[in-house]
Amino acid sequence: MQRGGGADGARSGDAGVEDPFSGAGARTHVEGDFSREEVSLANRNSGIPLEALRYEVTPPGLHYLLSHFDIPDVDAANWRLAVGGCVGNEQSVSLADVMQMPARTLRVTLECAGNGRAGMSPRYPSMPWLSEAVSTAEWTGTSLRNLLERAAPTAWAKHVAFLGLDRGFDRGIEHHYGRSLDLEQAMSDDVLLAWAMNGAPLLPQHGFPCRLIVPGWYGMASVKWLARIDVLDRPFDGFQQAVGYHYRKHAGDPGVPVTTMRVRSLMVPPGIPDWYTRRRLVEAGPVTLRGRAWAGAGVAIERVEVGVDGRWSAAQLAPAGTHRFAWRGWSFDWLAEPGEHRLQCRAHTVDGQVQPMIPDWNTAGMGNNAVQTLHVNVR
Amino acid sequence: MQRGGGADGARSGDAGVEDPFSGAGARTHVEGDFSREEVSLANRNSGIPLEALRYEVTPPGLHYLLSHFDIPDVDAANWRLAVGGCVGNEQSVSLADVMQMPARTLRVTLECAGNGRAGMSPRYPSMPWLSEAVSTAEWTGTSLRNLLERAAPTAWAKHVAFLGLDRGFDRGIEHHYGRSLDLEQAMSDDVLLAWAMNGAPLLPQHGFPCRLIVPGWYGMASVKWLARIDVLDRPFDGFQQAVGYHYRKHAGDPGVPVTTMRVRSLMVPPGIPDWYTRRRLVEAGPVTLRGRAWAGAGVAIERVEVGVDGRWSAAQLAPAGTHRFAWRGWSFDWLAEPGEHRLQCRAHTVDGQVQPMIPDWNTAGMGNNAVQTLHVNVR
Repeated sequence: MQRGGGADGARSGDAGVEDPFSGAGARTHVEGDFSREEVSLANRNSGIPLEALRYEVTPPGLHYLLSHFDIPDVDAANWRLAVGGCVGNEQSVSLADVMQMPARTLRVTLECAGNGRAGMSPRYPSMPWLSEAVSTAEWTGTSLRNLLERAAPTAWAKHVAFLGLDRGFDRGIEHHYGRSLDLEQAMSDDVLLAWAMNGAPLLPQHGFPCRLIVPGWYGMASVKWLARIDVLDRPFDGFQQAVGYHYRKHAGDPGVPVTTMRVRSLMVPPGIPDWYTRRRLVEAGPVTLRGRAWAGAGVAIERVEVGVDGRWSAAQLAPAGTHRFAWRGWSFDWLAEPGEHRLQCRAHTVDGQVQPMIPDWNTAGMGNNAVQTLHVNVR
Repeated sequence: MQRGGGADGARSGDAGVEDPFSGAGARTHVEGDFSREEVSLANRNSGIPLEALRYEVTPPGLHYLLSHFDIPDVDAANWRLAVGGCVGNEQSVSLADVMQMPARTLRVTLECAGNGRAGMSPRYPSMPWLSEAVSTAEWTGTSLRNLLERAAPTAWAKHVAFLGLDRGFDRGIEHHYGRSLDLEQAMSDDVLLAWAMNGAPLLPQHGFPCRLIVPGWYGMASVKWLARIDVLDRPFDGFQQAVGYHYRKHAGDPGVPVTTMRVRSLMVPPGIPDWYTRRRLVEAGPVTLRGRAWAGAGVAIERVEVGVDGRWSAAQLAPAGTHRFAWRGWSFDWLAEPGEHRLQCRAHTVDGQVQPMIPDWNTAGMGNNAVQTLHVNVR
C-alpha cells in the first residue's frame, strides 16, 4: 500500500522544484505571503462562504471540501467494499448490499482539522484555510457495526482501518488515503457507512458511492470513496494515521493524534463587503449578529459570548434541538454606532472547554479554534 | 446605485489596511507570492478540480464559482424581477410568471474572465485563478426576449442593464453587481433568464431564484440573483461595465471591453498527484490523455494539438454533437516513457483563433488563454 522514499529532499530537473516522489520530508514553515502551491490547493478545495453559515443544513456545493488526492471516477455498479483482516467472515459487498442494511440519517457538523491553519505563525505550507472549513449536512447510511458484525471480528481485533480509492503521495510516501478507529469507536451506532447527503446520492467530490461519517471528529476520520476495511490486531500504520494529523510542538515530537473537534464558533460577517479585502461596511442602528457554535463528540455548547471592541456579552442560543452532532445557532442584538469596530465570538461547552484568544500552535497547523475577529466600519 | 469615494487611498485605523470604502483606486500589481486577501478569495470562491473535466456536464458543487459580494438570502415567494427604463410597459414579474414563459435548456460552458490571472506577471491582486474557473452546465430558463417583448422597448432603447441583489464595494465604489448587453445581443434567443441548473432549482450560490445566462461570453455577463432590468438609451455606466472587465495595457488605457470567451483547452492531469505540489506521477506505457476545448459565441473548435516535450501532434476530437455553446472533448494516446515530461494542449477554432504560448498581458489579468503546461514524472 505504501512506497517509502529516501530521506533526502532530492531535486528534480525543474529549477527549485523539490521532487515530491523521493521523500521530501516535512516542509519548511513559512510566514507572511502564500506560495503558488498553497493557492493551487485553495483553488481546488472549497470553503464555505461565511454568509452560508445562515443555513442550518449547508446546501450542496457550499459544504466545505478537502480532498488530498484526485476525486476518483467510480462506477457504482462495479463498486465493492471489502472487509478483511482479523475477521471470521471476510466480506465483499455491493452498494445495493449496503443500502439494504438498516438506514439512519444523522445531521453532522464536519470541520477540517486544518481549519485556521493560515492563522498560525509560522505556518505549515498546506491548504491555507482561514476559517471556512466547516459545514453541516444530513448523512444517510447504515451503522458501520452492521457490516462489521457480519464480518465477525476475531478476539484479537483492536483497530479498524478504512482505505479510500484516492491515491497519491505525501512527503515522498505513496499511499491510498486511509485512517483508522479503534474497534470500540468503530462499533458505535453513530459511525455511518453513508450513501446519501441531504437526501441525494453522494456527489463525486463527497465520496460517491459510499463513505465513512464519524460524527464529532475532525473531517479526516470520515474517509471518502471507501474501498476496503481492514480489521487489525495492532495500530494502523498508514501515513495519514501515523505521520499526518498529529498535534506536535516540534519536529521530533511524537505528538498527540488529532481526534474530535475542539469547541468553536463563527459569525456571519454583517453588512456588505469590499470585493478584495472583504472588509465590512455596516449601517448604524440595530443589527442582529448571527452565527454557529459546535464542539466534538456530541459535547453540548453551554454558552456563546459576543465581543464588541473587547467587551463581552452573552449571545442568545437557539433551542438545543435533537441533533447532538450538529452546530447550534446563536444570535446577538448589537446597536451599531458609527466608527470602526472589532467583533468576536467565543463558545463554551458544558464540560468547560472554551475557545482560546491565541491559536494553540502546532507544527502542522491543526485544530486552530482561536476566537474569530471581524473588523467592520459602521456608517 | 453607486457611491463614489475620494481619490486618495486613505488608511483606516488598522496598521497597513487600506480603507476599501474611501476610493482606494486600482490596486498595485505584484509578483511572486500571494497575499492573505488573495487566499481569502480563493477559499471562498471555487475552482473545478481539473480531474472533473472528465464530466461532460459538471456535477453540482464542482462547477466553478465566482461571486463578487455575499451570496444573498432570497425568499423565492417574495422575489420580483422589475423591468423599467425605455419601455412602453414596465414589468414586475414573479418566479412563477417567469417559469410560465416558454422554456428551453442550453448546455453552456462558462469561464471566468479572470481565469489564468495568477499566470500573468506582474499580477493584479484579485481572485488568483490558475486555470480552474471553467465548467459546463445545463441551464433551463426562458429566452430573455420573451420578457423584453412584454416590456416593449421604445424606439430609443439601445442597451439593457441587469442588476443583481448582491451589493458591495470595489475600489471605493458602492454598487449592486450589474452588467449590460446591447439591445440586439439581449434579444438573441440564446440569452436565458434561467431558473434551473442541471434539472434542479438554482443553488443559492448560482443565482437563486433566477439569473441571466449569456452563452459564449465570459461569466461576468451572466448576472446572478437578478433583481432589475433597465432598458437604456445610452451605455450602462455601472462599475462592472464601465470600469471593471476591460483589457487595458496600462493604467490610463481606455481599453477594450471583455466580451466572449477566447479559445482555450485544458487537460485532465494524468497519473496521481503529490498532495502539496500537485506534481503528477504516471506509470510508463500507453496513457490516454483527455481534455476539453472551447471558444466563445458558439465558434466551433477545429482541432486540438497535444505537445509532449515540445513536439506537437493532433488529438482526436469527440463528435461535435448538438451543443454549440458547450466545450468539446478530445483525447490523445501517449506512450509514456520513464523520465520527466512536459505535456501541453492547444486548441484552434474554425475561424483561425489559436491559443498563444505566452499570456496576453493586461492590467486586470483578463482572458488568459495561454497554453496549459503540465510537468509529469513517468516511472
